[in-house]
Amino acid sequence: MNPDIRRERENASFNTQILTNILDGGAEKTRRRREIEALVINDPDFQHDDLNFMSRSERYDAAVKKSAQMILKLRDYGISDPEEIYFYKRVVRGNFHEAFGLHYTMFLPTLYSQCTPEQHKKWLPLAENFQAIGTYAQTELGHGTHIRRLETTATFDPSTQEFVINSPTVSSIKWWPGGLGKTSNHAIVLAQLYTLGKCHGLHAFIVPIRCMKTHQPLPGVTVGDIGPKFGFDEVDNGYLKLDNIRIPRENMLMKYAKVEPDGTYLKPPSDKLTYGTMVFIRSMIVGESAKALSKSCTISIRYSAVRHQSELRPGEPEPQILDYQAQQYKLFPLLATAYAFTFVGQYMSNMYHRITGDINQGDFSELPELHALAAGLKAFTTWNANTGIEVCRMACGGHGYSRSSSLPDIYVTFTATCTYEGENTVMMLQTARYLVKSYRQAREGQQLSGIVSYLNEPQRVQPHPVSSRPTVVNINDLSSLVEAYKLRAAKLVEMAAKSLQGELQHRKSQEDAWNNSSIELVRASDAHCHYVVVKLFAAKLSEVSDTAVHSVLNTLALLYALHGVALNSGDFLQAGLLNVPQLGQVTQRIKALLAEIRPNAVALVDAFDYRDEMLNSVLGRYDGNVYESMFEWAKRSPLNRTEVHDSYYKYLKPLQSKL
Amino acid sequence: MNPDIRRERENASFNTQILTNILDGGAEKTRRRREIEALVINDPDFQHDDLNFMSRSERYDAAVKKSAQMILKLRDYGISDPEEIYFYKRVVRGNFHEAFGLHYTMFLPTLYSQCTPEQHKKWLPLAENFQAIGTYAQTELGHGTHIRRLETTATFDPSTQEFVINSPTVSSIKWWPGGLGKTSNHAIVLAQLYTLGKCHGLHAFIVPIRCMKTHQPLPGVTVGDIGPKFGFDEVDNGYLKLDNIRIPRENMLMKYAKVEPDGTYLKPPSDKLTYGTMVFIRSMIVGESAKALSKSCTISIRYSAVRHQSELRPGEPEPQILDYQAQQYKLFPLLATAYAFTFVGQYMSNMYHRITGDINQGDFSELPELHALAAGLKAFTTWNANTGIEVCRMACGGHGYSRSSSLPDIYVTFTATCTYEGENTVMMLQTARYLVKSYRQAREGQQLSGIVSYLNEPQRVQPHPVSSRPTVVNINDLSSLVEAYKLRAAKLVEMAAKSLQGELQHRKSQEDAWNNSSIELVRASDAHCHYVVVKLFAAKLSEVSDTAVHSVLNTLALLYALHGVALNSGDFLQAGLLNVPQLGQVTQRIKALLAEIRPNAVALVDAFDYRDEMLNSVLGRYDGNVYESMFEWAKRSPLNRTEVHDSYYKYLKPLQSKL
Repeated sequence: MNPDIRRERENASFNTQILTNILDGGAEKTRRRREIEALVINDPDFQHDDLNFMSRSERYDAAVKKSAQMILKLRDYGISDPEEIYFYKRVVRGNFHEAFGLHYTMFLPTLYSQCTPEQHKKWLPLAENFQAIGTYAQTELGHGTHIRRLETTATFDPSTQEFVINSPTVSSIKWWPGGLGKTSNHAIVLAQLYTLGKCHGLHAFIVPIRCMKTHQPLPGVTVGDIGPKFGFDEVDNGYLKLDNIRIPRENMLMKYAKVEPDGTYLKPPSDKLTYGTMVFIRSMIVGESAKALSKSCTISIRYSAVRHQSELRPGEPEPQILDYQAQQYKLFPLLATAYAFTFVGQYMSNMYHRITGDINQGDFSELPELHALAAGLKAFTTWNANTGIEVCRMACGGHGYSRSSSLPDIYVTFTATCTYEGENTVMMLQTARYLVKSYRQAREGQQLSGIVSYLNEPQRVQPHPVSSRPTVVNINDLSSLVEAYKLRAAKLVEMAAKSLQGELQHRKSQEDAWNNSSIELVRASDAHCHYVVVKLFAAKLSEVSDTAVHSVLNTLALLYALHGVALNSGDFLQAGLLNVPQLGQVTQRIKALLAEIRPNAVALVDAFDYRDEMLNSVLGRYDGNVYESMFEWAKRSPLNRTEVHDSYYKYLKPLQSKL
Repeated sequence: MNPDIRRERENASFNTQILTNILDGGAEKTRRRREIEALVINDPDFQHDDLNFMSRSERYDAAVKKSAQMILKLRDYGISDPEEIYFYKRVVRGNFHEAFGLHYTMFLPTLYSQCTPEQHKKWLPLAENFQAIGTYAQTELGHGTHIRRLETTATFDPSTQEFVINSPTVSSIKWWPGGLGKTSNHAIVLAQLYTLGKCHGLHAFIVPIRCMKTHQPLPGVTVGDIGPKFGFDEVDNGYLKLDNIRIPRENMLMKYAKVEPDGTYLKPPSDKLTYGTMVFIRSMIVGESAKALSKSCTISIRYSAVRHQSELRPGEPEPQILDYQAQQYKLFPLLATAYAFTFVGQYMSNMYHRITGDINQGDFSELPELHALAAGLKAFTTWNANTGIEVCRMACGGHGYSRSSSLPDIYVTFTATCTYEGENTVMMLQTARYLVKSYRQAREGQQLSGIVSYLNEPQRVQPHPVSSRPTVVNINDLSSLVEAYKLRAAKLVEMAAKSLQGELQHRKSQEDAWNNSSIELVRASDAHCHYVVVKLFAAKLSEVSDTAVHSVLNTLALLYALHGVALNSGDFLQAGLLNVPQLGQVTQRIKALLAEIRPNAVALVDAFDYRDEMLNSVLGRYDGNVYESMFEWAKRSPLNRTEVHDSYYKYLKPLQSKL
């Protein structure tokens, strides 16, 4: 092991293992997770060369191979608990995706939740045994966010008891679904239902797209891969054009809405029933933000401990770059963010499961709050993690730009989360709608509960001159900082609500007023989410009993909160929560916290407990043997298969002879 | 043409052509640039399928082919003016790089500037006719920023009149030089010169690495490609390990420093002589920032004009997404930034040429300022453009993630500029060193000149409570905003200097004080650069005589300045340059400016005058026919070469039969 990184571990002030157990939810969970991870890591069937050395077709091929093996192995091992399956898959996938992703996350769950008993009997055995391999085709070439305007039609023909599915325009071609291009032989297609001459809006239909025997596209079906993307090379995101495809009436998912044989339409009892999956996936994405960022921090902090460069003091050896304050200032706030998001992810997962229980008992009361929280936190965490991954990459200097660091792979895979499952700005505006509504209810005297209850409190922010305002924040006290974030959020929600009001007074319509207040609305949501994150991080500390771990987490939480104050100092000054002299103290305190974290930085990323096989990064290796591995990796580059590249004979030599 | 985008052009308030001429530096320049661009666009030899459909080896092959053709064609056309060559190459390259990049930008210029007359006679004909294809090998696996610690050695052996070049360790392997892996047969190698038992620091040596007849690596040379990267797929960035390679004494570049036959070392007359190339390249990068960002704005704004989504008013057709304030707030400040950086790039290029003239006449007086400005602005513009490209990409929704948008290509190609030719944080700290030095000189009564002369002025910022301070800014007046940016910079330079002083008073060494003030130092540089950009944008306006163009550029400049105030409101409040009520007015003013820019947005990106062939983006097409092109592009995806992918027969069918 590299002596620098060994020394870092020896000097840590806390026991890494204890922190890992906290992150896993208990020592037994850590043990079992590692056991499952080892099943993949020690399995020769899953070993292959770096995917970055392959063409896209080869990468897709490798992904299908691994997914097929995974299905058989999980059955052999008898692993069926969803969390354990997730542990297993996470290692198989590495920094990429699996070929049957949407079959698991969308096709099967939709069948489970929206089939009638008869449909269950027909489709589940086919889907569970992969005779029907499926995807979920919603987004169209011209329609993403606003699904009500999807153009695909499903017209009921009572004479044959069939639906006729059609893509009437280029912009109506289904576009983007994962696994659609090459893998799936079925798709759940979202289409505008027409029956007896009337449109009844979007419904879901099971559409066979490829022959189950030959895998050839069926007549009338144009299906293919949408071409290379930023990432997701291993996934065949696809297009699907349907020309008067006929499917039997029974292929409409009819658990809730129905079309009877005579064409009569029966509408569903509630429109909240389809909320669930969406909220679940957004909650999961919060956890994925934490994982992508914690992986990136692991790589960049370990590398910064072994990388020596420049000089702090003339004549002395080059210091570890982790000793530079500028480097600490880049990486440690992100490390704190990774911990914050991990705890927020745990909270969202717990909240989701609790509320799902309520919903199953008919209690929908907490759903709007969960919905608003999932939307905003999905946007807040993915945006922050997205930027953070790139900061980590660039903090590794040139080598971060090499695919051997895996940081480019982590980025291109992760960045899609800012757009899919609800575009982030749209998400922020959804949360803002809930906040403004809550604010108005509070102003009207209604008592709010849950996380927005702070909007009940009369605003302490007074129209005093800034200097004479009472100082609210004790910058050394986490609970005081939580309070300050709360008041900032309250202030910004109020400002957004007042902007709306002002626009309405200028005789704008509700819709124009909303559009003309977007800047304030997004800021309000952002401040609200920031408050929630700081609050949940602080709350987590009370659960930690180990003194040394508590101390280091407390330092991280303070750094997270103060760094956010520094970045948004205008808000805090404007709201009178901070005064100008305190701003200087915030910088000083941040520096002191960086210095406190420095000796524990490597141990803090070790606690995330990513095996080298999961990081797949020469810079992030546990043993710190970076340069040797990088050289070995480079030698395997496909361009090195021959000493002299063909292009020499084709172009260089002829050029030289001509000049 | 798409009717939406046609309407946008019809409604613009100014003549696009006039603005294009301003950007080009005159109507004749525009004409000639277009003429040269057409030479490439109409040349069937340069037409090929999308590089994103190719493997890396194929892309490298295509790049070598194009570079070889380009050399012959430029000679045929008789194009030899550097600017005209640049116009030509820019179209050939598109969003990528050329195979002989370093031969042109480093190998040839180093030979020109550092060869003796005898060396010129030998090497220039070889290099100009591509018999010697060269690169510049400085960076090593373990050494980037701090070149004084490079490990490669060149030891003079008087007995044979040779230098022995050696890579003593893994970390000393040359790493990253473009064209080193496969293309070059020579490298200028930076190595520690040893003669008569003494080390004389870094010097440059011409080292043959491949046989000029067979292109095979020479004995003792280990050379290859460093493997796939985030971008630069078409470039063979390489590694080079030298095991006791002997080169004749005459292969040391001896225009300045010399080693005589008996081993006597003669040192160079000045160490400023090698500054030039570095400063030139950094100045050029400022212009590249403008280009990458203006391309990205062109794509995202055109697409936002043809993309319809969601609803502003119930029942009405989906609006253009450019009508959403949230979308305008993402894109228009970036559009303003692209214009700002374009003008800063022009300024840097002019300043470089002016000062180079002075230097050639022995006047080095302005070099330190140019050096500091180039470093800081390189960092400032690349960081901002880098973030901006990604905002543009994500503002295109899911389709921005497709390689067909070209936004991923623009990003991965551009982002490397944040690291190469001086890592950005290191650059910011270099500028800070100049600022602090200037600040101290001013405090000592010295009269500063040039761009830092504002540090002479006594700080108007008083330790008054914020509310009672005189308001400095008139937020509707550009020159008042320039003044505010200046005072903010002055304040932050002062704070950085005081932080240093404070650390020194705590008995820290100079070096530790510097390190412990990094946060303030980087902020000071950032504020200084921000001031320079706002100032130069404002200055450019005075050169514009066309009223309509002046008006729209003035709107952009105000938006650029006010958006920066809003993002850094804490600084302006802290320095008493703005008061709290004004902050609300800033937001209102920004909204008004967004609305003013809205009808001119498409015309403003049209004025950048990128031909479709240069953007290579289905979303950024001039005619706005986005969806049809996207479908056509996708059909050509390599995964669509067969209807059924091989992996079906290999894994899916067998899996289905087992379950």
